[in-house]
Amino acid sequence: MLKAVQILGCSSGLTIVSQRLTKTRNSSTVSFLSTSTNPLKLSTFSSSSSPRKTLCFNPTRMSSSSLPGSDPLPKSPTFVSGDVRKIKFCQWCGGPTKHEIPDGEEKLRAICTRCGKIAYQNPKMVVGCLVEHEGKVLLCKRNIQPSHGLWTLPAGYLEVGESAAEGAMRETWEEAGASVEVVSPFAQLDIPLIGQTYVIFLAKLKNLDFAPGPESLECRLFALDEIPFDSLAFSSIYVTLNLYLEDLKRGKVKFHYGTINKRPGSSPSDIRAFSLDYHLQP
Amino acid sequence: MLKAVQILGCSSGLTIVSQRLTKTRNSSTVSFLSTSTNPLKLSTFSSSSSPRKTLCFNPTRMSSSSLPGSDPLPKSPTFVSGDVRKIKFCQWCGGPTKHEIPDGEEKLRAICTRCGKIAYQNPKMVVGCLVEHEGKVLLCKRNIQPSHGLWTLPAGYLEVGESAAEGAMRETWEEAGASVEVVSPFAQLDIPLIGQTYVIFLAKLKNLDFAPGPESLECRLFALDEIPFDSLAFSSIYVTLNLYLEDLKRGKVKFHYGTINKRPGSSPSDIRAFSLDYHLQP
Repeated sequence: MLKAVQILGCSSGLTIVSQRLTKTRNSSTVSFLSTSTNPLKLSTFSSSSSPRKTLCFNPTRMSSSSLPGSDPLPKSPTFVSGDVRKIKFCQWCGGPTKHEIPDGEEKLRAICTRCGKIAYQNPKMVVGCLVEHEGKVLLCKRNIQPSHGLWTLPAGYLEVGESAAEGAMRETWEEAGASVEVVSPFAQLDIPLIGQTYVIFLAKLKNLDFAPGPESLECRLFALDEIPFDSLAFSSIYVTLNLYLEDLKRGKVKFHYGTINKRPGSSPSDIRAFSLDYHLQP
Repeated sequence: MLKAVQILGCSSGLTIVSQRLTKTRNSSTVSFLSTSTNPLKLSTFSSSSSPRKTLCFNPTRMSSSSLPGSDPLPKSPTFVSGDVRKIKFCQWCGGPTKHEIPDGEEKLRAICTRCGKIAYQNPKMVVGCLVEHEGKVLLCKRNIQPSHGLWTLPAGYLEVGESAAEGAMRETWEEAGASVEVVSPFAQLDIPLIGQTYVIFLAKLKNLDFAPGPESLECRLFALDEIPFDSLAFSSIYVTLNLYLEDLKRGKVKFHYGTINKRPGSSPSDIRAFSLDYHLQP
């Protein structure tokens, strides 16, 4: 089923725009999240009369530079994806680079002026777990920047050599000292502006022996009505937890795909300044 | 539901190993693919008595180098993810790198000896479309290496600045000249050994005006019983199409998460030399 709803994050009050993107498989009824301060409030409506909008290739939509701090990274990497002009030298031969669109391509690349190799930049995957335990979820209070002191799901960059599920469990171990089993995929949330994709799995605790790692000040199981929505670290975590609560209200946890588009000009710390576009479901 | 099955790809005959990985949400009955030359053959069985295996963090499992050509890339990038020792120079200051495990980390990194920055390497996402049209699927015969002359779904590397769905539609346009609408997420297939993750969407043609792009020799709609399983380009495509056929047999197309582990020492061209591990579903 295609979920045909757009959620406009809003730091004050409630703003919702619904869109029928394309043909649904088996339903024209969609539900959507409230972005008010009460995230558990849920509304449903029929979108069958909504304007049709297709998800189509738009070659003009590109962001060649990231927005520093717009949706802060779980860790602080030296290199932010896509910032191609920051690549001054070839990492293979040390030659200086030029920044041009190569023949047959459409995007600006860093090309070595000595050996001719191209340094391609691609989005990074951030993998994490939504750990469920007896009606509660596990959150970590960050001990690192950005978003120091705010709450997040245990998550971090996927490494080469591990699967997304393995990476999600590793991050949960590193940040929360929690040994978990991955149960199912829950969400893929792309953030094109900063070249990140969040891949979140539902997981369960193997035991209750969890404790904050070096990157966390505190780890705690929160009842669903006690989740600190006003103190979350990132838009992606805000969306994930809202989708989860919405699914529980419906009685069925599903897989979600969506794109988080930060509102241009919004404050990096305003995690509700976004729209959730192209929310699709199997 | 957790799909608790492992598929062992096999170039000759049929080899299947089932595993119950962890608690299922609502079913203990799993089905699995035949890897015989008749991919439509489907078997089902109850795995409730199978040995339990949890999906747990294994810090010793790492691949610091890629296996050249093991599951060939859709395009031929200059840089293969994770091959950290090939990074000889800092791309920001041009200084020579050293290869060490930084304090507080566990993995080998390329660290600049001049400015101290670390060049992190992360898996890349390959995004593509499984385009359905009147009971047929759209395939492209590759006009580039690797796997020149073999059939694939239209797919390629996700770029910074686009969502996975947008990237999948772009690649479908570039490789098949096909204008499509994404309908729903279908599969995420990780290939840890080479640092790739395939993200495949179900899509539908907006019109029938498709034609091969520069990277394709031919594009064609195949009836399901005519899919050229013996001439597919990559293991990931083989798995995707088999899962799709399996879903159609069951009467419901679902989302699939899984890990494709190439069989060590197998020929790069043997796309059936793999196991599909940790096959999870929402």
